[in-house]
Amino acid sequence: MTMGAFVTLGERIAKANAEAHARILAGEPVLTDVVIAGEAIPDLQRRLILHAGPPVTWDRMCGPMRGAACGAMVFEGWAESLEDAERQIAAGEVEFQPNHHFDAVGPMTGITTRSMPLFVVENRTTGDRAYCTINEGMGNVMRFGGNDAEVVERLRWIAAEVGPAFGAALRQRGGIPLKGLIARGLSMGDEMHMRNAACTGLFLREIAAALAEAVESRSLLKQLLAFIAGNDMFFLNIVMPMAKSMIMAARDIEFCTIVTTMARNGTDFGVHLSATGDRWYTAPAEMAQGLLFPGFDYSHANPDIGDSCIVETVGLGGFAMAASPAVVGFVGAGSLDDAIGYTRSMSEITFGPNPEWTLPTLGSIGVPTAIDARHVVATGSAPVINTAIAHREAGRGQIGAGVVRAPLACFEQAVLEFARRYDLEA
Amino acid sequence: MTMGAFVTLGERIAKANAEAHARILAGEPVLTDVVIAGEAIPDLQRRLILHAGPPVTWDRMCGPMRGAACGAMVFEGWAESLEDAERQIAAGEVEFQPNHHFDAVGPMTGITTRSMPLFVVENRTTGDRAYCTINEGMGNVMRFGGNDAEVVERLRWIAAEVGPAFGAALRQRGGIPLKGLIARGLSMGDEMHMRNAACTGLFLREIAAALAEAVESRSLLKQLLAFIAGNDMFFLNIVMPMAKSMIMAARDIEFCTIVTTMARNGTDFGVHLSATGDRWYTAPAEMAQGLLFPGFDYSHANPDIGDSCIVETVGLGGFAMAASPAVVGFVGAGSLDDAIGYTRSMSEITFGPNPEWTLPTLGSIGVPTAIDARHVVATGSAPVINTAIAHREAGRGQIGAGVVRAPLACFEQAVLEFARRYDLEA
Repeated sequence: MTMGAFVTLGERIAKANAEAHARILAGEPVLTDVVIAGEAIPDLQRRLILHAGPPVTWDRMCGPMRGAACGAMVFEGWAESLEDAERQIAAGEVEFQPNHHFDAVGPMTGITTRSMPLFVVENRTTGDRAYCTINEGMGNVMRFGGNDAEVVERLRWIAAEVGPAFGAALRQRGGIPLKGLIARGLSMGDEMHMRNAACTGLFLREIAAALAEAVESRSLLKQLLAFIAGNDMFFLNIVMPMAKSMIMAARDIEFCTIVTTMARNGTDFGVHLSATGDRWYTAPAEMAQGLLFPGFDYSHANPDIGDSCIVETVGLGGFAMAASPAVVGFVGAGSLDDAIGYTRSMSEITFGPNPEWTLPTLGSIGVPTAIDARHVVATGSAPVINTAIAHREAGRGQIGAGVVRAPLACFEQAVLEFARRYDLEA
Repeated sequence: MTMGAFVTLGERIAKANAEAHARILAGEPVLTDVVIAGEAIPDLQRRLILHAGPPVTWDRMCGPMRGAACGAMVFEGWAESLEDAERQIAAGEVEFQPNHHFDAVGPMTGITTRSMPLFVVENRTTGDRAYCTINEGMGNVMRFGGNDAEVVERLRWIAAEVGPAFGAALRQRGGIPLKGLIARGLSMGDEMHMRNAACTGLFLREIAAALAEAVESRSLLKQLLAFIAGNDMFFLNIVMPMAKSMIMAARDIEFCTIVTTMARNGTDFGVHLSATGDRWYTAPAEMAQGLLFPGFDYSHANPDIGDSCIVETVGLGGFAMAASPAVVGFVGAGSLDDAIGYTRSMSEITFGPNPEWTLPTLGSIGVPTAIDARHVVATGSAPVINTAIAHREAGRGQIGAGVVRAPLACFEQAVLEFARRYDLEA
């Protein structure tokens, strides 16, 4: 740029990546509403099931995702039983697509169908909107592959009661800005992937009075307050679309090597690069290493799954491990020093810190933000992701928590494709 | 003890202090109820005003405490105006006593009168009960010396609506155990004296659904949820009686040099020693050093005031500063390393750690618990207290926050009296 008309590719990349980083940081994500999936995403009016991660066909789909998909068929009334659901799917009567193709995200199996209520996070800077289902709680739940009557009944209650109540409370309140809430949560030990205890409490403080205003039935109000209060991970399904709404601003920037999506379907891990838009770069999903619940070993574990690692693309989760002394033990990541080491090493593969989201244990440096695929390839240091671990069979649920690396091969493919695309112009 | 019948005074002290420490740790504090002060403390049926700290006469009482006392007279209907209240008090028509004489505690001015609702924390191990008013919120409030119509009106609302609602919710719920909640708060950046943001959220999670069950009026319910949610320090008035209910178990142990009360009235700082029961050892209150709000300097500041340093007697507040990177800046205490230094230095004057309340930034060592007056005197290292700073005039409110040391002279007197008492037996 300083050399007049002659601009090197390196300079163009540097400028594009600075732009991406600035756009991510400029985001003003606000939780604005809860809407019915089929209204927010018109494609869901047909028999379409959205799932976590990059595209995957039924024959390659992992156990918990298959189980959740069949449960969703029963929930929607498209199938009479799980067996009927499986038969219809095997016969090709149902379409599958990734959540990410519709600006949606979902934890673990991430199954989203038309009758489910979705949180809406709007990035007020860009107008981008991202969507995510409402967290079902812990235990026997669809995101971990649960699909029995209890799971389906709970989803019906969420659709009939929880979604409309939250939607009314949020609209009446004028939305909840999330950026400051995240800053606060980081100072309270949340890294927002495997620990959302603080942010769940902060969210309850923001929404409780509005719920009391919006909900006529006192018994429902009591259920709703207990539903939030009883689930440390309630906020996960809010921080995920928040991250999505922020990273969306960095999509489709020419010459930009920043990663705009990371997602796993339990079979493959997939990545988007800004400059190459919606093109997926995939590799087999890794197995997370961490702590398994008593009675389980890695032969029971499903490979890495879920859209939740969208939070790592904006500097949270494994990238913010230093914020969360309490999560370190839970994911088997060693000591606080090890956690700080993870965060420091992620600063080597990101464009720069986010000065609004600081880490008290690291002298108030900001979380490392905007993964540069070139740096991942050059250093061989793959993004660190904190994650839950699901049983590999449907209906068995969570069996642990741990840390996993994104497969390097995804980033190598992305950089190769990027080089192909711009070599001619360089 | 190992030498048969001959037991040295040192051995007796060591055994007594171990007993005190064990009794503090064995406490099982539960927030059980809200009661009317005059019912819980029958002495309040007469014209008695309770205040923070050791005893103090009207002529030596600081500005904010005088102001709060006059406001309480108006609140109780004992005076027609603040002027009328002051005239009656000056004429000796009202009695003053410390909260601590009735197992009560109050932040800052700590004014407690008969119509005020009090939180009840019961130590289920001992049956001891401790009391504290309900936190009024921030800004123009009685605990900082506020006494105008707004303050009195709010107190009437708290007495008429807030107290009964919390009482009903707590009774219906069967009480809220506090020990685990504190452990969790320490991992979320609270030290529970100047930062109660996490515990306030955790408390809201515990009480919200019970409030929805107990409160008939939806508009009141909304007000109550917003009242808690809007005040990061709401939990202070719960952790204070919790600490009191725990330290009460260590009172009146022969040969015991553990400090069982620290409290300040804005003029004097006072201390109780276990072995010498209710005898106060006092010295002039110090001036806290920290950060003052814009427009104020130390000429505006009142000396150290309030019963809130009861939390330091059980290892919280300044003693747990390492838990709270976020509070360090707020009280002007330097960096996280300085905060860790405060906690480490307090381990030199305490009997031992509390393994149930651990500090994630200190390798999960427990908070230093049970102040030994002998160690304070021997090391010259006085207890560190995190505190708010009040304006020295009534009705002006909070002007900052900081760190203060308990005056060494209190501990010197206590040790001297202890020596006098036991020299003959030694």
